[in-house]
Amino acid sequence: MKPGNIFSEIPNLAKDEIFETLLKTHRFELERIISSGQATPSGQWYDQPTDEWVILLKGSAGLIFEGEKEVMVLHPGDYVHISAHQRHRVEWTDGEGKTVWLALHYSGSDKMPRSRE
Amino acid sequence: MKPGNIFSEIPNLAKDEIFETLLKTHRFELERIISSGQATPSGQWYDQPTDEWVILLKGSAGLIFEGEKEVMVLHPGDYVHISAHQRHRVEWTDGEGKTVWLALHYSGSDKMPRSRE
Repeated sequence: MKPGNIFSEIPNLAKDEIFETLLKTHRFELERIISSGQATPSGQWYDQPTDEWVILLKGSAGLIFEGEKEVMVLHPGDYVHISAHQRHRVEWTDGEGKTVWLALHYSGSDKMPRSRE
Repeated sequence: MKPGNIFSEIPNLAKDEIFETLLKTHRFELERIISSGQATPSGQWYDQPTDEWVILLKGSAGLIFEGEKEVMVLHPGDYVHISAHQRHRVEWTDGEGKTVWLALHYSGSDKMPRSRE
């Protein structure tokens, strides 16, 4: 039995971001995302039907949420909770190296009344 | 809006392991665990009612699963899936610094027939 590694098997050349499912159940999906300098296309927003908890594990990125003026700069270990339909954009990701994210997508209807987020 | 950081607010002195819930729903619990050289007491095993996906993000650790001869050594980025009732022990964690884990506990009954794990 051997562990997987979140930083392994990262292709050197990638025109697009890479999304890989690490674990999926009926209730959530855990995903590795690898960015190589990509950003959300100008004028576009992510508007997701599910809640997302995401942590940046390598590299760096700038996130912006609709209605917020400042870009949230993420460094390794930084995590953020993005509610369903909370419109956001990835302004930039590290242009020199790989940026590795771990994202947990789940249904907001599973939330507990007093859940800490 | 500011991100949290998985490596922040780690107390210097800790006799015991520290378990903190980062996100909890009716279906899963996401937890930060900080070890400071602790191991599972001799002769004891973890036998958990839930499935667990766990990633080591800082430090190092040795895991052993019942019936396996070799200790699985985990370094940053290494992750492993531990099924409910799969008895295991933490043989050791880094004695010089902190070991930071991110663990996702969930009900195995939520598993999809063809889930990748």
